Amino acid sequence: MSDPRHPAATAGGSSATAREHALALDAADPLAGFRVRFEMAADDGIYLDGNSLGRLPVATRSRVLAVLDQWSTELVSGWPDWIDLPLRAGDAIGALVGTAPGEVVATDSTTVNLYKLVQAAVELRGGGALVTDRGNFPTDRYVLEGIAAARGLELRIFDSDELYGPVEADLGGLGAGDVVVLSHVAYRSGALADMAALTAAARSRGATLIWDLSHSAGAVPVDLRGAGAELAVGCTYKYLNAGPGAPGYLYVAAELQRELRSPVQGWFGQSDQFAMERDYDPVPGIGRFLAGTPPILQLAAVEEGAKLTAEAGLAAIREKSVGLTKLVVALHDEWLAPLGFELGSPRDPAGRGSHVSVDHPRAWTFTRALIDAGVTPDFRGPDSIRLGIAPLYTSFAEVWDALDRLRAIAARDDLPDAPPARVT
Amino acid sequence: MSDPRHPAATAGGSSATAREHALALDAADPLAGFRVRFEMAADDGIYLDGNSLGRLPVATRSRVLAVLDQWSTELVSGWPDWIDLPLRAGDAIGALVGTAPGEVVATDSTTVNLYKLVQAAVELRGGGALVTDRGNFPTDRYVLEGIAAARGLELRIFDSDELYGPVEADLGGLGAGDVVVLSHVAYRSGALADMAALTAAARSRGATLIWDLSHSAGAVPVDLRGAGAELAVGCTYKYLNAGPGAPGYLYVAAELQRELRSPVQGWFGQSDQFAMERDYDPVPGIGRFLAGTPPILQLAAVEEGAKLTAEAGLAAIREKSVGLTKLVVALHDEWLAPLGFELGSPRDPAGRGSHVSVDHPRAWTFTRALIDAGVTPDFRGPDSIRLGIAPLYTSFAEVWDALDRLRAIAARDDLPDAPPARVT
Repeated sequence: MSDPRHPAATAGGSSATAREHALALDAADPLAGFRVRFEMAADDGIYLDGNSLGRLPVATRSRVLAVLDQWSTELVSGWPDWIDLPLRAGDAIGALVGTAPGEVVATDSTTVNLYKLVQAAVELRGGGALVTDRGNFPTDRYVLEGIAAARGLELRIFDSDELYGPVEADLGGLGAGDVVVLSHVAYRSGALADMAALTAAARSRGATLIWDLSHSAGAVPVDLRGAGAELAVGCTYKYLNAGPGAPGYLYVAAELQRELRSPVQGWFGQSDQFAMERDYDPVPGIGRFLAGTPPILQLAAVEEGAKLTAEAGLAAIREKSVGLTKLVVALHDEWLAPLGFELGSPRDPAGRGSHVSVDHPRAWTFTRALIDAGVTPDFRGPDSIRLGIAPLYTSFAEVWDALDRLRAIAARDDLPDAPPARVT
Repeated sequence: MSDPRHPAATAGGSSATAREHALALDAADPLAGFRVRFEMAADDGIYLDGNSLGRLPVATRSRVLAVLDQWSTELVSGWPDWIDLPLRAGDAIGALVGTAPGEVVATDSTTVNLYKLVQAAVELRGGGALVTDRGNFPTDRYVLEGIAAARGLELRIFDSDELYGPVEADLGGLGAGDVVVLSHVAYRSGALADMAALTAAARSRGATLIWDLSHSAGAVPVDLRGAGAELAVGCTYKYLNAGPGAPGYLYVAAELQRELRSPVQGWFGQSDQFAMERDYDPVPGIGRFLAGTPPILQLAAVEEGAKLTAEAGLAAIREKSVGLTKLVVALHDEWLAPLGFELGSPRDPAGRGSHVSVDHPRAWTFTRALIDAGVTPDFRGPDSIRLGIAPLYTSFAEVWDALDRLRAIAARDDLPDAPPARVT
């Protein structure tokens, strides 16, 4: 209460709004020790955008340097060690999303991986529509739009509940031969879909469902096999902390691997890769979804990021994530709602992932002011401030301080509108 | 002649076979200073596999570290700097292959890029066959095979001259609507195709030609616009020294960009990328061939590698390359031919790129022994030893020493056959 940097704390209020409460939660945090596993400058402020680009793990810098050393000294002789890295990194991710070894491969971008799986699913079972919900991430929609046009298929975008994303009832229109893409956690609202229920709903209608785990893997426990999921893709540079533009991954359930073929046939998916004079004959396993030579520097970062997350454990990560997002919601209700904010995320922690959106018509102006005040959130137009919670390095005190600064900004009556700008 | 490590030199012979000749060429080499621009350990032997994986430039290590620092300290604020990197790196490559700015983008793997261009070309002008020559790199063939099967198109593989690759006459069977993929330098023989003549031949028959520059860019002057070429792809980890699995690139002539659409629609190809609630509307320029988030660490290495090559200049690189490959051929004729070798590359320097293949039924056994003797060549089954010449760091003395060791190995009558092994 006596910290002069936080006068708001001296104003009293409920225990949830007292900074001491946040400090006590940090003191009891079993994951607190993971904060130092990331590079963090003393002055780099409060980072609530790990849902867009995660921080650099200390081990990843060493690992990238080791790959540079290996390239420098072993040259082409490094390949026997590198060649299985897409599968090793894939298995490291698989351990976080509930798959068996050999069901995930890390390669290409999330977009390219989704393209491969949608094309492969249409080829195997298609003929129906390509389907997604309006709240899904745009690149998923663009992929479907392109394939639908190329193949002359119907593209069906269904309206999902703004806060709760696709719910089982919304899949009622699905028919046999449809291929559906849904996000496990919605990029805007943070709504967490019921993977098992939706997978069962799609399957019962003869549709093939592809999950996008980009905003859930690494922050939310995912159990692909337990949910009966057959296909998934995801991103590694958010909660898996693999760095800007690091490769994505894809999952194909073992049962489906032999009959599913990638549309992009390349030499890394070819069986007996170096017997060059043969027709294409894809490897039996998940490796058939490789195409060109995989990017080794960035795949090494993918493996490190996934291993660090596994070390912390997803149960602990989820528990802390829920605690942190509950604090955001509590402070929103107490401080921001009276200033005209609306909660843009599900109120029940069981129904949301690891980011919380707070919406306000002046969200862009507040975002710019927050950045000037040393807090990095994520803006999504037109009116949403996403507060990303990365439990491995976000503290309760940071959340408290960020919300405290946001309410001070929003309470100002002299804040000019920020000029419209390109948001990256 | 008195160097005790090189007893062969004391045996006399023509001037081309004297080690002093090689040393004199090195002494007069205007590119000799570029050798120290690459990391090279004192004991890492003679590396003649830069046509498979180039060495690590000193500047690239610094640049990768700078990107790590930027990720660490700027986090998501690094994106305004990173977001144009695929185009910047593309322009750096474009300066080496004869394009205007804005005609090349660095992204994805060579395989994925070829897939995108073949699909786009078929969509725009297709209906005919997909065509390539039997000597082309396997992944190019696999891509075509996959697309032909998916679209119900004919796949036509024509026999090319084993040494000279596709020649103009071989394109006689082309018809309107065909899409052809040819390598500028053949991966096995090193044959250098006549890009202008083949491009004109394809065009006169109404076919669309896509060049694969993987084994030429960075070692051989390429003039895409001068040759009238419309489309190309290539690799950056060979003569462009961008590191294991670094992204490839693609070229689309400016005139064609507006009408050509990538089959893989993703958010990095979308105009007004962050206005998320819109249908897909690709950017007007080469950026429409981006799909997912590009891998920044490895794209930084691409840009560095291309800039280093530009600094040396392709005229000087080509002149040295020709000198080095002429030395290989001369030493082959003098030393290896009597031991049962055959030259697997064109004899005329104007008709070959920067590697020379020497063929022998025991090539694999000799390759293993060469590696044991401190020389790294590249083996391509069943009988070819590829000697890759990277003029920025390969010296004439290294070529002389490598061939000297190879002849000593091949002359042994006690060398057991190497066990068959997976070649990487």
